[in-house]
Amino acid sequence: MPYLSERGVRIPASAIRKLTPLSDAAKAKGIKVYHLNIGQPDLPTPTTALEAIRNVGRTTLEYSPSQGYQSYREKLVTYYNKYGIHLSADEILVTTGGSEALQFAFLACLNPGDEIITTEPTYANYMSFAISAGVTVKTITTSIENGFALPPVHAFEELITEKTKAILICNPNNPTGYLYTKEEMEQLKEIVKKHDLFLFSDEVYREFSYTDTPYISACHLEGIEDHVVMIDSVSKRYSECGIRIGALITRNKEVRQSVLKFCQARLSPPLLGQIAAEASIDEPDSYGKAIYDEYLERRKCLVEGLNRIPGVFSPMPMGAFYTIARLPIDDCDKFCAWCLSDFSYEGETVMMAPATGFYSTPGVGKNEVRIAYVLKKADLERALFILEKALEAYPGRTL
Amino acid sequence: MPYLSERGVRIPASAIRKLTPLSDAAKAKGIKVYHLNIGQPDLPTPTTALEAIRNVGRTTLEYSPSQGYQSYREKLVTYYNKYGIHLSADEILVTTGGSEALQFAFLACLNPGDEIITTEPTYANYMSFAISAGVTVKTITTSIENGFALPPVHAFEELITEKTKAILICNPNNPTGYLYTKEEMEQLKEIVKKHDLFLFSDEVYREFSYTDTPYISACHLEGIEDHVVMIDSVSKRYSECGIRIGALITRNKEVRQSVLKFCQARLSPPLLGQIAAEASIDEPDSYGKAIYDEYLERRKCLVEGLNRIPGVFSPMPMGAFYTIARLPIDDCDKFCAWCLSDFSYEGETVMMAPATGFYSTPGVGKNEVRIAYVLKKADLERALFILEKALEAYPGRTL
Repeated sequence: MPYLSERGVRIPASAIRKLTPLSDAAKAKGIKVYHLNIGQPDLPTPTTALEAIRNVGRTTLEYSPSQGYQSYREKLVTYYNKYGIHLSADEILVTTGGSEALQFAFLACLNPGDEIITTEPTYANYMSFAISAGVTVKTITTSIENGFALPPVHAFEELITEKTKAILICNPNNPTGYLYTKEEMEQLKEIVKKHDLFLFSDEVYREFSYTDTPYISACHLEGIEDHVVMIDSVSKRYSECGIRIGALITRNKEVRQSVLKFCQARLSPPLLGQIAAEASIDEPDSYGKAIYDEYLERRKCLVEGLNRIPGVFSPMPMGAFYTIARLPIDDCDKFCAWCLSDFSYEGETVMMAPATGFYSTPGVGKNEVRIAYVLKKADLERALFILEKALEAYPGRTL
Repeated sequence: MPYLSERGVRIPASAIRKLTPLSDAAKAKGIKVYHLNIGQPDLPTPTTALEAIRNVGRTTLEYSPSQGYQSYREKLVTYYNKYGIHLSADEILVTTGGSEALQFAFLACLNPGDEIITTEPTYANYMSFAISAGVTVKTITTSIENGFALPPVHAFEELITEKTKAILICNPNNPTGYLYTKEEMEQLKEIVKKHDLFLFSDEVYREFSYTDTPYISACHLEGIEDHVVMIDSVSKRYSECGIRIGALITRNKEVRQSVLKFCQARLSPPLLGQIAAEASIDEPDSYGKAIYDEYLERRKCLVEGLNRIPGVFSPMPMGAFYTIARLPIDDCDKFCAWCLSDFSYEGETVMMAPATGFYSTPGVGKNEVRIAYVLKKADLERALFILEKALEAYPGRTL
């Protein structure tokens, strides 16, 4: 048999995927598993989207334009306007999820061997896309102690080499829930300008910002318009993860022309997903308000509940729907596996994402887990109770 | 502004895309353009698929599994069985179109710098995906004289180096319509075995095989099961180009494990597309029969019509819904552009794909065009008439 690609070997199997067989086995034994591990919203998709799908009148499900439907891109212009992001439809390229937007940003802007800098803990799939593109990711470790705030400018500058081509941020942040302040965004702007870098900004959680800190998009920053590539997706804001509709947004015409070639090679983004996404923009504001209020409640319930458990600490995340919590444990990979394979309380257990999967620095995050608050409040409360029982029983407890 | 990636620069802008502004300008002048240039079927999508979409009952459009729904993969097993391809559901990974299956095959099996061999003329996007993956494509020119048959084995062996990792075929072939014989497939098998190569086989046109030559899938070849990666898509067989559902199929477990990591990084294939594709398998056989008969009629109409035009030659394609025709012209890029910018007959003209876009050897295919027969017969007849008039009027005519 021919040998396989190094790329495939280097991509780490996701920590959650490694736990899935244990979770399946627990379920097969009749144990109820509370899924705190995933970013799959349980809330309903807008009815305008579901109606649009049910009313599809076309008889041939044909290719859409490679850059996405003009009508959808024009509607997105009005959507971004509400956030003070003023674009033309030409500046928006529709992609197959935020995932494809990231891949195209890497492929169009970076050469193999180039380096990008991001903070850690970070969204694990950034690493996979970087490996696919032959790009090296350097990370600056952020700390649970200050809620994973942006590191000082000098921490970035220390990592910049001749090969550095971009800084990548996720704002509001997955997995930490951190939301960058105006001051921090201005600092990033200065670094990007000074070192002539791209700023890749993944802003798919923009709707989920719970504090008085205003949401500052990379697209708001003046003077670096040609440097900014914004990554977006409808997955989270409309609970539409399955339709695979994202967008790559940039005012840099040359980047767009290059990205368009990658768009053309894969022919088109999903047709039915675009129909759903376009209709979602017509959903009344009450939809977003209800979703927001629900997450706000859940956040309070989760984070207050976590901090009531002896030895547990969670900062209050400012956005998104995750928190990274520190637990009194020896090893989060072992603990998360143990919860599924060796523990249950009254026939129930919890599944969490070991935080080690979000760090590239070896050994960091060993006593942290990522918890998503995409469960109903009653379930979250019960899951917290089960977690407390698990921590009491866990042999690797450090407290 | 930071410099862009070499990759984006190297990907050629598609020939058809270059013609699109000319086509748009012609339409703006009120000229009717017959689109002989695209592989976008005009025939209806199965009603079972449209019904399934209209009856989507779920209220959250959530992620599907990264490898695709189990129910869809099990149904695909029954579909492939009809073609004598016996698989388990585990051997099928659902992808976002055939495009993504190709990308994942390259990323999982090939290292940057590796070489693959294919015939030319070839599907132009193979080159784009190869550039994205850092892979070099070497091509063997096939000839219109023998209907673009597979070159003799020694032609492949002459191109094999230490870096050669795979042979890539498209069968039935886009753009030539050639269908590989059993003997040719056996020859490929021997090369693959002897040199320990992967065989990537794009078989998205399997339904469209019009001769007594049996369709031989790469999956039928015995003894190279671990070498074969089949690329598939529902786009053509169900006129479902827009739903972006394809598949990567291999009996090689290690390849699957590597591909699965790329699948997990991009989270999931389109949910709504999978619902449509799964329902399409339930469409009565009469659907496929009607589509097949329609293409058979169109092929006859087109190819006989082409060969009746003085100086024009088209082989009779054995499959797919394209033919490469030789025209009495100096330069197909110029001619195809001229048809849109400088010519019309009774307010009508034709758009074709210059064949140069399907060859990587410079200068080859300059008097050839690819013509798709995805128009109704009456329109095809009219388009042939317009083409004849265009050839009479074209200043670069060579006959």
